[in-house]
Amino acid sequence: MELGPGPEFDRIRRIVQRLGATASAVGDDCALLRIGHSTLALSTDLSIEDVHFRRSWLSEQEIGWRATAAALSDLAAEGATPIGVLASIGAPAQDSGEPLQRLMEGVGEAAASVGAQVLGGDLAQAKTWILNLTVIGSAERPVQRSGGIVGDNVWVTGVLGGPRAALERWLVGSQPDAAARQSFAHPIPRIDAGCRLAELGAHAMIDLSDGLAGDAGHLAAASACAVAIDLGKLPLHSSVPEAARLAGIAPERYAALGGEDYELLVAMPPDFGEREAQSLGFESGVALTRIGTLAAGQGASFWSGGTLVEIAGFSHFT
Amino acid sequence: MELGPGPEFDRIRRIVQRLGATASAVGDDCALLRIGHSTLALSTDLSIEDVHFRRSWLSEQEIGWRATAAALSDLAAEGATPIGVLASIGAPAQDSGEPLQRLMEGVGEAAASVGAQVLGGDLAQAKTWILNLTVIGSAERPVQRSGGIVGDNVWVTGVLGGPRAALERWLVGSQPDAAARQSFAHPIPRIDAGCRLAELGAHAMIDLSDGLAGDAGHLAAASACAVAIDLGKLPLHSSVPEAARLAGIAPERYAALGGEDYELLVAMPPDFGEREAQSLGFESGVALTRIGTLAAGQGASFWSGGTLVEIAGFSHFT
Repeated sequence: MELGPGPEFDRIRRIVQRLGATASAVGDDCALLRIGHSTLALSTDLSIEDVHFRRSWLSEQEIGWRATAAALSDLAAEGATPIGVLASIGAPAQDSGEPLQRLMEGVGEAAASVGAQVLGGDLAQAKTWILNLTVIGSAERPVQRSGGIVGDNVWVTGVLGGPRAALERWLVGSQPDAAARQSFAHPIPRIDAGCRLAELGAHAMIDLSDGLAGDAGHLAAASACAVAIDLGKLPLHSSVPEAARLAGIAPERYAALGGEDYELLVAMPPDFGEREAQSLGFESGVALTRIGTLAAGQGASFWSGGTLVEIAGFSHFT
Repeated sequence: MELGPGPEFDRIRRIVQRLGATASAVGDDCALLRIGHSTLALSTDLSIEDVHFRRSWLSEQEIGWRATAAALSDLAAEGATPIGVLASIGAPAQDSGEPLQRLMEGVGEAAASVGAQVLGGDLAQAKTWILNLTVIGSAERPVQRSGGIVGDNVWVTGVLGGPRAALERWLVGSQPDAAARQSFAHPIPRIDAGCRLAELGAHAMIDLSDGLAGDAGHLAAASACAVAIDLGKLPLHSSVPEAARLAGIAPERYAALGGEDYELLVAMPPDFGEREAQSLGFESGVALTRIGTLAAGQGASFWSGGTLVEIAGFSHFT
């Protein structure tokens, strides 16, 4: 297993070393488990109030939806079909009535939106909201991060930078525009696109929970090649130009550094072209944009009009 | 699905109602999932610093072990064989170095002790330690809470009340004796006993995470019969007599109200007797004690020398 750079992954690397044979290969966000003739994909995802979100930004329903969609996004990135979710909730005592019910309604809606059931969970009292969503799906042809090969094209679903734009407005005490807010509060796990890309022979896939800059590096490290991204090709969320102007940086750079996009970054063989992308976009309801290539070498590099641009991604524990 | 009494379960009942068809039957701590010819058992368990434990009581390794053993105990109660665990950890920034590594070592040791692998996880920064352990196992003959029938005998593994004795010493700023401390810090998930009891035809099983008084009520509600417990038969932890004296209550009552015992309460058909219990105890390394019966009626009742004793169990959100 090769993990990308960064202090969060340094910690995971040390944990895996320390656990030795007790740890199975944990290179993807999903664990894969072979049961009879089926392959199951499992992932677990922690959302903590004041770390991952603030109460004042989101309704309880949105908090539940967002945490669940974020976990389901890991299944999408594996090309897996969701089966169920397990929801562990730490709830403040004063919110354990109607607010907890609304939060679980959001969890249920996100699960139902991809045909998954709420299989169970745990409930405890806590000082702030804590949500841990474990998701399980079946993957007929799991797509790992590690399968990218030199010559693949790199594609991305949807548009980038909306959640970052929302976050930055909130952080300065302002309100994001409706589209940016929606992209943060109500991310859509790209299940249909992920499954279809897997069927069409995707070599490697990852979701952009840490943002393109960070996650392209993880895909590069796992696939043992270099990922070259053409910043000029990035599909930008409608709120990015204005947000980037306020931040004083180029829109493409802004979008590349935005986290929590929950879009898919996928390495496809060269025979997957614009026509295939259009047809897949039509089927899955989300656009697919070619933004780069896999080449010999290592790491992720970002290019703007032929010039190399220095970019670093998000990490816990910086 | 019939859940037992209490405010925590009132909340879960409302959630299940609200989710409608999106929620599958979640009567047990484990969800059951049929995959091909296999039945998988899944459970998820949240441990929060200052809710479930305090730093000053436990080493990081013990915090990791305890949270993992607590989750694995749900598999034991289903008669399932563990396959793997997923560990979501929220770690304070200042503890994200060596303390985090030690905590994960405890997680790994608990997993390895029952032949499970650490399949994956999530890592985030948090103000206090948060651990969510999701466990997955295979259950050839899953034992639910709901299968108890009138005439069954009720048995319990191990001894009761040790964790409560430790907790109460800590809460008054004192130190528990070594045996009580060990029972809290290093619970043993009763996997071998649970699997063997399943093979031997257990009708219903539950672990005593909420304490005997609460969990006997859950088994009674799920099985739609009455559980009658003979308090005089309870197997007491060695620290209980002194702890009960300090608390000013009878030792049996003290043990019945102790939470976090992580022992198994099981309804066995009448042909399972003392001889079978001894042989199972020898194989699984834990004693089995007959403490009551299932009868027509509802709820859990506790008897002492022919007299009914009023007892109520632990609940979050009291």
